Amino acid sequence: MKKKKLKQPLPGETEKESGNPYVFSNIKNLMSKIRKPPPPGAKTVDVLIIGCGPGGYAAAVRASQLGLTTAVVEFDAVGGMCLNWGCIPTKSLLKSAQVLHYARQAADYGVQIKGRVKPDVPAMVTRSRNVVDDMKKGIEHVLTKNNIELIKGMARVNADRSVSVFNLPDSRQQIFSDHIIIATGASPRPLPFAPFDHNRIISSQLAIAPARVPKLLTIVGSGAIGCEMAWFFNTLGTKVTLIESREAIAPAEDADVSAHLARAFRKAGISVFTSAQVVSIETKKIGCKVALQTKRGEATHWASSVLVAVGTDANVIPLALDKAGVVMEQGRIKVDKYYRTSAEGVYAIGDVIATPALAHVASAEAVVCVEHLAGLPVQPIDYSNIPMCIYTVPETASVGFTEQAAREKGYRLRIGKAYYMASGKAAATGEKDGFVKLIFNAADDTLLGAHLVGANVTELIAGLVTARQKGATASDIMRSVYPHPTMSEAIIEAASSITE
Amino acid sequence: MKKKKLKQPLPGETEKESGNPYVFSNIKNLMSKIRKPPPPGAKTVDVLIIGCGPGGYAAAVRASQLGLTTAVVEFDAVGGMCLNWGCIPTKSLLKSAQVLHYARQAADYGVQIKGRVKPDVPAMVTRSRNVVDDMKKGIEHVLTKNNIELIKGMARVNADRSVSVFNLPDSRQQIFSDHIIIATGASPRPLPFAPFDHNRIISSQLAIAPARVPKLLTIVGSGAIGCEMAWFFNTLGTKVTLIESREAIAPAEDADVSAHLARAFRKAGISVFTSAQVVSIETKKIGCKVALQTKRGEATHWASSVLVAVGTDANVIPLALDKAGVVMEQGRIKVDKYYRTSAEGVYAIGDVIATPALAHVASAEAVVCVEHLAGLPVQPIDYSNIPMCIYTVPETASVGFTEQAAREKGYRLRIGKAYYMASGKAAATGEKDGFVKLIFNAADDTLLGAHLVGANVTELIAGLVTARQKGATASDIMRSVYPHPTMSEAIIEAASSITE
Repeated sequence: MKKKKLKQPLPGETEKESGNPYVFSNIKNLMSKIRKPPPPGAKTVDVLIIGCGPGGYAAAVRASQLGLTTAVVEFDAVGGMCLNWGCIPTKSLLKSAQVLHYARQAADYGVQIKGRVKPDVPAMVTRSRNVVDDMKKGIEHVLTKNNIELIKGMARVNADRSVSVFNLPDSRQQIFSDHIIIATGASPRPLPFAPFDHNRIISSQLAIAPARVPKLLTIVGSGAIGCEMAWFFNTLGTKVTLIESREAIAPAEDADVSAHLARAFRKAGISVFTSAQVVSIETKKIGCKVALQTKRGEATHWASSVLVAVGTDANVIPLALDKAGVVMEQGRIKVDKYYRTSAEGVYAIGDVIATPALAHVASAEAVVCVEHLAGLPVQPIDYSNIPMCIYTVPETASVGFTEQAAREKGYRLRIGKAYYMASGKAAATGEKDGFVKLIFNAADDTLLGAHLVGANVTELIAGLVTARQKGATASDIMRSVYPHPTMSEAIIEAASSITE
Repeated sequence: MKKKKLKQPLPGETEKESGNPYVFSNIKNLMSKIRKPPPPGAKTVDVLIIGCGPGGYAAAVRASQLGLTTAVVEFDAVGGMCLNWGCIPTKSLLKSAQVLHYARQAADYGVQIKGRVKPDVPAMVTRSRNVVDDMKKGIEHVLTKNNIELIKGMARVNADRSVSVFNLPDSRQQIFSDHIIIATGASPRPLPFAPFDHNRIISSQLAIAPARVPKLLTIVGSGAIGCEMAWFFNTLGTKVTLIESREAIAPAEDADVSAHLARAFRKAGISVFTSAQVVSIETKKIGCKVALQTKRGEATHWASSVLVAVGTDANVIPLALDKAGVVMEQGRIKVDKYYRTSAEGVYAIGDVIATPALAHVASAEAVVCVEHLAGLPVQPIDYSNIPMCIYTVPETASVGFTEQAAREKGYRLRIGKAYYMASGKAAATGEKDGFVKLIFNAADDTLLGAHLVGANVTELIAGLVTARQKGATASDIMRSVYPHPTMSEAIIEAASSITE
C-alpha cells in the first residue's frame, strides 16, 4: 500500500491515536485474513467506488489522501446528478433569472435601460452547460492529481465482492477490492399513472435544459426542485401551477417558512395548490390535461408540460445487489452509522441510502465512511444538524428542528423572530422580504433550530450550523457582534427577541 | 423608577442573580447618596444620552428596556453618520451600482437588453435618500414606542453633571441625570493643508449625494469608505485614482486581502497608488492639482474633485468636556472597559472613543455600557472578535488577527486557504473572484482570524464571529456540513487545507 503524506488533520485525531500502528496501516493484511485472496494477476484496489457524484467523488479523494489505492466507476459523466442535472445548472439558471429580474427592475435602482429586456433561454442554458462542463473538467483534474483511476462503465457487484464493469458493446473487466462503496445516487421518480415521456411529462433533468419555454407549466411536488423550477419559469414568463399533496409547499420546512414562501410565490404570479393530489394526466397533441383532487373537490387544468418532482428512486438495478448479499429497505440500501451494508466490505452513501437526498450529505457521508474503513476514529454524522436550502427569491435555509418537530419531541421552547423589514441592509439593497426564526431549548438556552427566508440566507445558514454544533445559546448569539449593515444582524435581533 | 417587564433575557443572567435586589433596583437611591440632588422641579431622567447614532440609539433602547427613564439629545437627524451619511446610503448606492453592473453584463447571463444602459445618478441618490428617510422614521417610531424622549439640540455637559441643551436661536433647557452617555460620534478629518471646501475638496458626506458625477476623482485614503467610493464612482464611469499612504490599500486587512483587492481594483480600471503621500492640493477653476510623494519620487495629477477619507475627529467641541472633568486622550474620550469616563456618572461610547469606528461596535458598546450602569453582570467586549467589512466587488470581510498580527504575537500558525475558483456556487453565479483564508493556532487548533474576499463574504463572516467566540477549531469547521452549493463551502475547504 502506497502511503502518502497526509494533507490535513483527521477529525478527532490526537497524537496518541495517530501513533497507534493499527490505525493507519495493515488494513489490507487484516482484511486478507478474513477474505479469500483475489486470483493471481487480478486487478485490485484498496477502495473501489461505484458512482462519481458528490458522494463517490468525495470518497475517492478522501481515500486517496489517506494513501489508499482508489478507483471510481462511472457510467455517465463525473459529478453525478448534482453537477450535471441538479444543484449546479439550476443555480446557474436561477442566477440568469435573477439578472433578468434586476434588469427589469433597473429603474427602481436608478439604472436607465432604454430598450427591451428579455430572456434568451438558449443562451441561459448554454451558460449553465458551460458552467457544468468547467466543473467536470475540474473534477477530472482532481481525480488525476490524486491518482484516482476513473473507470467508465456500468458496475455489478459480485458475490465474491469483486465488481464487474461493463462498457458496452464489448468491454468487461473485473476488479477486486476489500472496500466497495456504492454511491450510485438516485433518479427522478415518475408518478405511477404517468410515466415520463420526456416531451410533455418531464423530470427536472429535462426541465433544466429546456429547448423551449413552456407557456403553461404544471409542477407536481414542491420540494426544493419544484419550488426552484416554479420560480425560474415564472420569471421567464411561463404561467406556472405548483401542486403539493401535503398541507404546505416546501413541506420539509418550518410552517412559517412554507407559508411565507407560498405568499411570495402567489404574489409573483405562481398558482399554488396545496393538499392537492394529481389523479391523472392525459397527454394530448396540444398539451396535457391534469386532473386534481383537492379538498374542495375535483379540478382540471391544462398545461403545455408537466414537471414531476415528487422524489427519487435509488439507482440500484444494474448493481445486482441481492446476489452480493446487500439488503435493501424501503427501496434504499440499508446501512449502519458508518455506512456498512449487510455485506462485509460493501458500503453505501448518498442518495442510494435513506438519509436526506442532498449533495452535502453525500459528501459528508463519504468522508465518514472512508475514514472509518481506514480505521480512523470518526464521529458519526449528526443528522439533526444538516442544513437545507431552496434557492428561490426569497431564498430559504434551515437547520435543526422545525417548531412543530421540536414541540413533538417535548421541548419547552423559546422562539425569536426578526424581520428583514427592519434591517438597514435589506432596505438599502431593496430586499426587505424575509425573516430569521430561531428556536431555542428553554431548559438550557441552546439552539434547536434555525429557519430563514430572504436574500442571502443560503449563505447565512452555515454559521448557524457551526453555532448549533458548538452548543451556542441565545445569549452567545446576542453577545456576538455582527457587521453593520448586513442581513446577518437579523440573527442577533432574532436571538434578542425570544419569548416563550 | 418605573419598572417595565423585561422583554429579553440579560446576558449572563441567572435566576440567582436576577433574584438579587441590588441588581435591578435602587440605582437612583444608591447614586443619590453620592451626589447632590438636583434642584426641586428640575427635569431629571435616569439615563441621558447625547447623540442618536448607532451607539446612542442602541443605548436608549436598552436603557428603556431595563425600565430606566431615558432621553436622547440629537442636534441633527436621528441615526447619526451611519444612517445619514455612511453605512446605509452607501450600501444603497453600491446596490444601484451592482444592478448597473449586472445590466451591462446581462448578455453573459443570457439576458438580452436591446438599448442603452446608463446610470441615472440623481435617481440613485434619491433612492438612497428615501431608504435613509424610511429608516429614520423607523428609529423615531422605536424611540416613541419605548417612551424615549428625543430632545433636539446641541448638548453641553456641565460641571454638576447636568446637561444643557441649546436649540438655537433661543431655547435652552437643563436636564439632570445620574448617567450621561456621550455618543456624539466623529466627523471626517480634513487633510491639514487642504480644508474641505465642499466643492472640489470633499468628504464622504458630499460624495454620497453627488449633484454630478466627477470625471476625474482622486480619493485620499483607502479604508472602507475610500475603497467603496472608488468602486462606486468607477462603476459609474468616473476615472478614479486611489491614494494610500501605507504600503497596501485597505491597510487594516490581512495582506492577502489587500493585495487581492488592489488587483481587482486595477483590473476594473482604478489607478491605485500605495506608499504615496499627498503633499499638496491646489484648487483651480478647472479642477484640483494633486501633488504626490511616492517611493519613485514626486508626481502631479489633475482631478475634478478630491475625496478625503483619511479618518475622523471626535465630535466633542460643543460638549465642553474639560469643565465636566472628562479626560481626553489622543483626541478621543478616555474610558474604561465599561465605558466610564474620568467623570463619575459620565460614559462615552462609539466613534467618540478610541475603539474601532464602526457602527456595530458602537451598538455593542451601548449595550455593555447600559447594562453595566444598571448594575447587571456584563462581559466586556472582546475587541479581537469584531468583524470588519468593505462592500466593494469583490467584498471583503474579516475577524480576528491578520496573519502578520498573529505572527507578531508569537503564535505558531496553521493557515488554510480556499479559492472561489473551485466553488460550484461561485461558478454558477459568475462570481469566481475570491478566497477564504483561515488562521488557526497550531497549539490548540482554535480559530485566530478569518479573512475573506468575494461575493457574499460580508454575510459569511457572522458565522465565523460566533465560531471564534465559541472556540471553534479547524476540526470543528471541517466536520460542519454546509449546504451545497454555497460560497460557505469554501470555509470548510479552507479549514480542510491547513498547513503550517
